Amino acid sequence: MESKNTVKVLINGKIIILSGYESEEYLQKVASYLNNKLTELGSLTGYNFQPADTKSTLLALNIADDYFKAKTQAEAMENDMESKDKQAYDVKHDLIASQIQINQMKQEIGQLQKDKSELSLQIEKLNTELEKFIGCE
Amino acid sequence: MESKNTVKVLINGKIIILSGYESEEYLQKVASYLNNKLTELGSLTGYNFQPADTKSTLLALNIADDYFKAKTQAEAMENDMESKDKQAYDVKHDLIASQIQINQMKQEIGQLQKDKSELSLQIEKLNTELEKFIGCE
Repeated sequence: MESKNTVKVLINGKIIILSGYESEEYLQKVASYLNNKLTELGSLTGYNFQPADTKSTLLALNIADDYFKAKTQAEAMENDMESKDKQAYDVKHDLIASQIQINQMKQEIGQLQKDKSELSLQIEKLNTELEKFIGCE
Repeated sequence: MESKNTVKVLINGKIIILSGYESEEYLQKVASYLNNKLTELGSLTGYNFQPADTKSTLLALNIADDYFKAKTQAEAMENDMESKDKQAYDVKHDLIASQIQINQMKQEIGQLQKDKSELSLQIEKLNTELEKFIGCE
């Protein structure tokens, strides 16, 4: 069983102790993201004058928006991937069919070359036969 | 230029007016997600006894965690897609090479069949020649 990490992070000027199964690096990354969000929101006109619960809701909505956009991106990629998988399957299928055709044609070429050799041999024999009759009429 | 939507949403029992470029459907979806989060957190022992700013930070961290996990998923898919694109490129390349080979073999087969016909013709002529000499010695 994974052990829990306990990490001190600085959020919004306060030290908070986080405990989670994720790495310390991850928890610091999340804290850093939050602090950036708070800085961004703090620079918006009027934000700082809002009551605390409104600021809390605005912060939550803002992060939720990032979440939904990342989720949408992941879902779009999943669809894209399915269609790429289908295309790749079709191309592989065509490649296999081509390789089968190549093997058949190799056999056909082999047979034709063999036939040619036999015909050439026959021609040799016939020429030899004909030579016997030189001088005949 | 896109117009802004103004939407009334219910978050944590309060009506909030949201204004955004996203659709009303989207804004309601985000509000619904937030309410579910608050219900989840509310069911955790001790959450409700925390001071307001701690609850706010916990909510923000929780949503940020969802965000980072979705982001990681999107990034993993992007890498996966790049490697699939590379594989697909290689297979297409092999397919084109196979098709070129098939065309060359078709030409070779055509030539061999032509050669066979000529040899057969030669054999016919030789046989005809030989027949002239029947009875000769």
